[in-house]
Amino acid sequence: MASLPDGDPVLSARSGRVRAARKLARRAPRAERGLFLAEGPQAVREALTVPGCVREVFAVPGRHDDLRDAAGETPWRFADDGALAALSDTVHPQGVVAVCAALDVPLAELLGTTPRLVAVCAEVRDPGNAGTVIRCADAAGAAGVVLTGDSVDVYNGKAVRASAGSLFHLPVVVERDPAATVASLRGAGLVVLAADGRGETDLDEAADEGLLDRRTAWLFGNEARGLPDDLAGLADHRIRVPIHGRAESLNLATAAAVCLYATARARR
Amino acid sequence: MASLPDGDPVLSARSGRVRAARKLARRAPRAERGLFLAEGPQAVREALTVPGCVREVFAVPGRHDDLRDAAGETPWRFADDGALAALSDTVHPQGVVAVCAALDVPLAELLGTTPRLVAVCAEVRDPGNAGTVIRCADAAGAAGVVLTGDSVDVYNGKAVRASAGSLFHLPVVVERDPAATVASLRGAGLVVLAADGRGETDLDEAADEGLLDRRTAWLFGNEARGLPDDLAGLADHRIRVPIHGRAESLNLATAAAVCLYATARARR
Repeated sequence: MASLPDGDPVLSARSGRVRAARKLARRAPRAERGLFLAEGPQAVREALTVPGCVREVFAVPGRHDDLRDAAGETPWRFADDGALAALSDTVHPQGVVAVCAALDVPLAELLGTTPRLVAVCAEVRDPGNAGTVIRCADAAGAAGVVLTGDSVDVYNGKAVRASAGSLFHLPVVVERDPAATVASLRGAGLVVLAADGRGETDLDEAADEGLLDRRTAWLFGNEARGLPDDLAGLADHRIRVPIHGRAESLNLATAAAVCLYATARARR
Repeated sequence: MASLPDGDPVLSARSGRVRAARKLARRAPRAERGLFLAEGPQAVREALTVPGCVREVFAVPGRHDDLRDAAGETPWRFADDGALAALSDTVHPQGVVAVCAALDVPLAELLGTTPRLVAVCAEVRDPGNAGTVIRCADAAGAAGVVLTGDSVDVYNGKAVRASAGSLFHLPVVVERDPAATVASLRGAGLVVLAADGRGETDLDEAADEGLLDRRTAWLFGNEARGLPDDLAGLADHRIRVPIHGRAESLNLATAAAVCLYATARARR
């Protein structure tokens, strides 16, 4: 094993620690161990702000020394470029990866905070979209994000990356049953608004009518199929983003951004 | 060469026509020939609505017969799965690809229509972002989109796909010089608003102050670096999307969606 002048070992891709961490690239080992990987300085920095989240950090020697200071007592493992490439799912590994404890909380815990704005993704399949919605929800001041139905794993590397650190900023809930989720949200006093291209009210009308002024859960559907009718039918209102030109629709993340920001604006 | 029962030939990946079309996967041959590829039934359908745009269509026999009707006199070439795969940059080719004539128009032509809303991308590098901004601009009712600076090629396959047909709905301008572009937009009577995370006015304040009521060009920057200061400084106002939570920023496409929709709302 290679080592630095002060004797610290430098792990290769063949080391047991790196091989164990590498398994977290797949969903089943993540779920089983309750761990996931956060890659790159932005994600690692944000992860380190969450007490107890980061279990260990792998980093190329001489890079990201500011993060090593922030890591404090968290185990910091030097590893070579090959090891970092093995832990990365990007073309250009950024030299630092953290092994993090899963962060999702039960829905009841989120609802116990009396949230004013919640984003719910039902059947989101693309990890980039899931991460981008989390980032938008954070930016728009949402209190949390719920992934429900047969959604992508929020701890997928691409989802973590697309969240740009926001996964570490606000509570995320993973709740299998969409109908039960909607019932719980409404039971907690939230108005449930379905973002639905066939909705009877458009977003501007909803704002004008005061529908966006209350504590709200926005429900977003699958990127290809939108929300299933039975689920949209459980919402208090079905709201469409108005299409002023000839586009058939917006994509999931941009529609979510427009809806969440309309709510944020209605509240100011 | 294989052929159908009625004698129509079925082209393979080795045929001269397919090989010539395949070269359009690269930017230089696209620019030289003024042609690009549009893949999948949605893109081909929208392309066929633009008079003179589609030069030929390659399709797997027995699929997309509705499009063949829409194609009218446009040459329709049957091709096998291997040929379609060769013309596709996706994992799951959709059985139909059109060779299209470049659609971009000079900036003066767009400005001659007295546009009320224009989206300008400066140094957009990711083709998915470029296409998504075009889709959002279309949905928000923009009159056109300008790509300026060292931006990605709007005819990149991923950009065409991300636009979800909107590339065929509204005029697109490719104009190299960002400063000259801003000067022309202002000269045409448009208020130029720079979307800038460090802007002095937030988007809600801009709406409240009536800044969004006029004919507007929104200027969006690079996905990683935003707008360079010298370019943002040429705008009439620098507007930031308010960040209510702890996110550092929104990504390019979601920020553009929020800005363009804020303008659309201010006008209703």
